[in-house]
Amino acid sequence: MVKQDRAIRTRRNILEAAAKVFEERGYQAATIAEILGTAGVTKGALYFHFSSKEQLALGVLHEQDQRFVIPERSCKLQELADEVLLHAYRLQSDPMVRAGVRLSMDQHAEGLDRSGPFMRWSGVCRELLERGQAQGELLPHVVPLVTADIVVGTFAGIQSMSQAVSDYQDLLHRSSELLRHLFPSIAVPSVLASLDLSEQRGEEVYLEIQHGLREPVAAAS
Amino acid sequence: MVKQDRAIRTRRNILEAAAKVFEERGYQAATIAEILGTAGVTKGALYFHFSSKEQLALGVLHEQDQRFVIPERSCKLQELADEVLLHAYRLQSDPMVRAGVRLSMDQHAEGLDRSGPFMRWSGVCRELLERGQAQGELLPHVVPLVTADIVVGTFAGIQSMSQAVSDYQDLLHRSSELLRHLFPSIAVPSVLASLDLSEQRGEEVYLEIQHGLREPVAAAS
Repeated sequence: MVKQDRAIRTRRNILEAAAKVFEERGYQAATIAEILGTAGVTKGALYFHFSSKEQLALGVLHEQDQRFVIPERSCKLQELADEVLLHAYRLQSDPMVRAGVRLSMDQHAEGLDRSGPFMRWSGVCRELLERGQAQGELLPHVVPLVTADIVVGTFAGIQSMSQAVSDYQDLLHRSSELLRHLFPSIAVPSVLASLDLSEQRGEEVYLEIQHGLREPVAAAS
Repeated sequence: MVKQDRAIRTRRNILEAAAKVFEERGYQAATIAEILGTAGVTKGALYFHFSSKEQLALGVLHEQDQRFVIPERSCKLQELADEVLLHAYRLQSDPMVRAGVRLSMDQHAEGLDRSGPFMRWSGVCRELLERGQAQGELLPHVVPLVTADIVVGTFAGIQSMSQAVSDYQDLLHRSSELLRHLFPSIAVPSVLASLDLSEQRGEEVYLEIQHGLREPVAAAS
């Protein structure tokens, strides 16, 4: 049991080092030697967990997808908004999330299949949209599969533009504006009027999860 | 005069070689030696036009912004849609455009100011939105400055997702869907109903410009 805990800690250490190196250097330029040096583990320990640079990158991509679960909302479009706004908040504050996003957006990461995070995120959004549709939250013409890809792709661009022009300083504001531009084409008016798409929402959801709080007061119920 | 023509051709050669090398290798990994080899010009000729790798990259970024001018449309939101759909079409077909977009999205291009293309594009969109606003095309709450950034940022993400999942095969479809999701939050209904946001539109506008044709038949007039 203690041995297993140590293995989990070592794996976590290695992924944090890999995230740091990938974020600083990009996928192509990063080397396993550099990740080894940053993690301060033996070559044997690293290769026990990850067999190649690609496996390390896929580990970082997987890790950033996994770590937060939004409490279920009665309104599925609020839950979708919360996914986007929480992700924006975490992107500002968590190096693992930032490294994962940069890897997904690295068009020069040859040999690395970057479609995974896009597809996983798109799957999450699609499920929420389908559940919202079943509850009558969506306008009649909306196709969840198509709209899910639009939500994921547009957020990817908004974060990239925010990184380029302000090093993520304006990301929460831009993310809130994105949802205000997309949701009128998706939600029926009565649902639209009940949503919290504000730029503070991401932090509120983050604190709610951290402290096991109940749904923030302003949320649609 | 002949001498000047030759200088223009040489400059163009160098930029095309730089575009190719930047697209294949990324900004960080690309070298001037490689660009020299690809362009087949002398070191002296290259340094006459561009003093550094950064200047070469800025040259590519500038070039991809410059080369097509959309004929003026009476409906400014159609003109905005045409900018987006033409850009998507050119991104599929023109290596210089593709290289420029990849440079703008390259989060590992240290020392290269990538905010230029975002800001220039945003300026173009803002002007079209302001002119549309003056003609009563926009919903009352729209702030051209904010919406312009949303159009540019979201398109950047849509193209990146399309590159990652289909190597740009589905870009025209995704671009058309993007506009169908954004424009209902921007345009008054009567304008919305008159717009051509179809995935064929980009190619039609391209041919219109190439052949000096009149505005495509389906366009809002």
